[in-house]
Amino acid sequence: MPVAKPSGVQTLLVAAILTVATSSQGLLTTASKTHDGKYAYNFATVPLLAETLKLVVSAALLWQRRATARITLDVKSVAMFPVPSIIYLVHNNVQFVFLSYVDPSTYQILGNLKILTTGVLLRVLLGRKLTPLQWIALGLLTAGAATSQLSGCAANGGSSLSAPALGYFWGIVSAFLSGFAAAYTEFVMKRNSDDLYWQNCQLYAFGTVFNLMRLAYDGVTETTPRLSEDGQPLHWLFDMLHGYSLTTWLVVSNLAFTGLLVSWIMKFADSIVKVYATSMAMLVTMLASVAFFGLSPTPQLFLGIVIASASLQIYYLKPEGAVPSGSSGKLATDEK
Amino acid sequence: MPVAKPSGVQTLLVAAILTVATSSQGLLTTASKTHDGKYAYNFATVPLLAETLKLVVSAALLWQRRATARITLDVKSVAMFPVPSIIYLVHNNVQFVFLSYVDPSTYQILGNLKILTTGVLLRVLLGRKLTPLQWIALGLLTAGAATSQLSGCAANGGSSLSAPALGYFWGIVSAFLSGFAAAYTEFVMKRNSDDLYWQNCQLYAFGTVFNLMRLAYDGVTETTPRLSEDGQPLHWLFDMLHGYSLTTWLVVSNLAFTGLLVSWIMKFADSIVKVYATSMAMLVTMLASVAFFGLSPTPQLFLGIVIASASLQIYYLKPEGAVPSGSSGKLATDEK
Repeated sequence: MPVAKPSGVQTLLVAAILTVATSSQGLLTTASKTHDGKYAYNFATVPLLAETLKLVVSAALLWQRRATARITLDVKSVAMFPVPSIIYLVHNNVQFVFLSYVDPSTYQILGNLKILTTGVLLRVLLGRKLTPLQWIALGLLTAGAATSQLSGCAANGGSSLSAPALGYFWGIVSAFLSGFAAAYTEFVMKRNSDDLYWQNCQLYAFGTVFNLMRLAYDGVTETTPRLSEDGQPLHWLFDMLHGYSLTTWLVVSNLAFTGLLVSWIMKFADSIVKVYATSMAMLVTMLASVAFFGLSPTPQLFLGIVIASASLQIYYLKPEGAVPSGSSGKLATDEK
Repeated sequence: MPVAKPSGVQTLLVAAILTVATSSQGLLTTASKTHDGKYAYNFATVPLLAETLKLVVSAALLWQRRATARITLDVKSVAMFPVPSIIYLVHNNVQFVFLSYVDPSTYQILGNLKILTTGVLLRVLLGRKLTPLQWIALGLLTAGAATSQLSGCAANGGSSLSAPALGYFWGIVSAFLSGFAAAYTEFVMKRNSDDLYWQNCQLYAFGTVFNLMRLAYDGVTETTPRLSEDGQPLHWLFDMLHGYSLTTWLVVSNLAFTGLLVSWIMKFADSIVKVYATSMAMLVTMLASVAFFGLSPTPQLFLGIVIASASLQIYYLKPEGAVPSGSSGKLATDEK
């Protein structure tokens, strides 16, 4: 698969930008709410507009490169691109079912399992072999993320993690769908050396269609229609942008931006890079909340950061890091 | 230093026994209390009797091996053996000062720092070089132990870890004394190929003396003397065994047993093995409390076990575990 390999520095840079952008996403979304914590706009329109924006940007960039861009147009190839959107659609529904069985804290903590399922699905779909050390690193990232999310206070029904078996079941299904979507997307992007923006166009075209279908379905089947400030019912399509502020557009464009970064990472790096970037983003968001929004710093946040950082170092450890300096440590890999 | 190296299995066995025995120590000590949570006996006599018991056992075993046991009797060598006892004496006092500044939760969590200081002092005193991966492993063991001890509920003044700067200062001093005592003991035991039991005899002879001096000092200077059930004042020496039950003797002999195991580990393995054994013992005790004493299982205990186990695997990872299977991963250690 002749995909140009970027330098380690390039990948690190893109990953770092994704971390910051993902962290900003949460903060921007909160900032886009009204002061009573509600959305003045239809939040379900945000993914649709982000997909459309990604499609427009990718099409424009592809047009710019049309002279040299490699393009595959056979049906078999194009037919692979709706799959991620379908998986995400199913995943969204599973998330709702999952959440109906567990409290928000358990929902968040079990959500970290997608770190491990991504590794598993990478092995299954792309034949990527991780070393034992790398598997331990992924386990530690999961544990570190979960640790930072501990809220304690079992008396308040905090992190007791008591949930019905069905809750755990849907949590695991949700994690597998996440991992499957990531691994499949990476598989599709790396399958050939088509231009990144051509692959994006296919991905986001289907994404736009599916999101539109979803919005239409919700809009047509809803029993209590959304109302404007003066009590007029809002149409799901024609009043789509009702209540949109500048901040809302920032939420949309930031979401589009992170999506484009993920696309690049899937083609030129791998799903594990994405997993680390988004996990670190969660910790960065918590740190930012401590620094700027009055969240009290907790030992679990500090410990979570320590463990996640250790995980990152371990995953990307150069082999020399595992051998005492000065020893003649040759590996007997030929004996395997 | 021609000290006979035990097999990995032997070391693992001794470490496992130490883990179980250390865990039992806490449970036995609790069992030796009366039903209102107090000690019917003078707890300060326990370390003294344990040192004496260790001395008696070591002398007996040395006598049994007197034909072949190597013995060094010069003053310079013998003069090294009081040092661990002196360090432990100072450490005990520092622990009291430390505890006066922080709550029990912070005291316990900061206590884990001795894992890291042991590694540092091993480097300083014995020139032991740890790989970067092993340092990360020690950091993870510290983090994992701390995670399991999180109590949450900042509202109840739980694990907020807010302590005056002096509290952190004394905590760090305490951790360094622990690490220093361990590393120095290992240094002394490995310094020559003297018989283990001869070295033990010196160690425990001085230990007995210092403990006796300590008991005498406390007994002579105490303002409120201990009283028997019928109100008679108890003498610190002649009534030393007042209130001793069978369980108390089990506490003493178990403490002696763990001490002898640690001695073996210091001579034939290293301080890191001891550190892992005692950290695991803490987790085993918590598990036992969940299984038998009604402690509620918490996510932090589960996460702590996961992280500590990962640390153990990482520390003792064979170099092949850091390389993808099938690759020709030669290490460029000659280029260092």
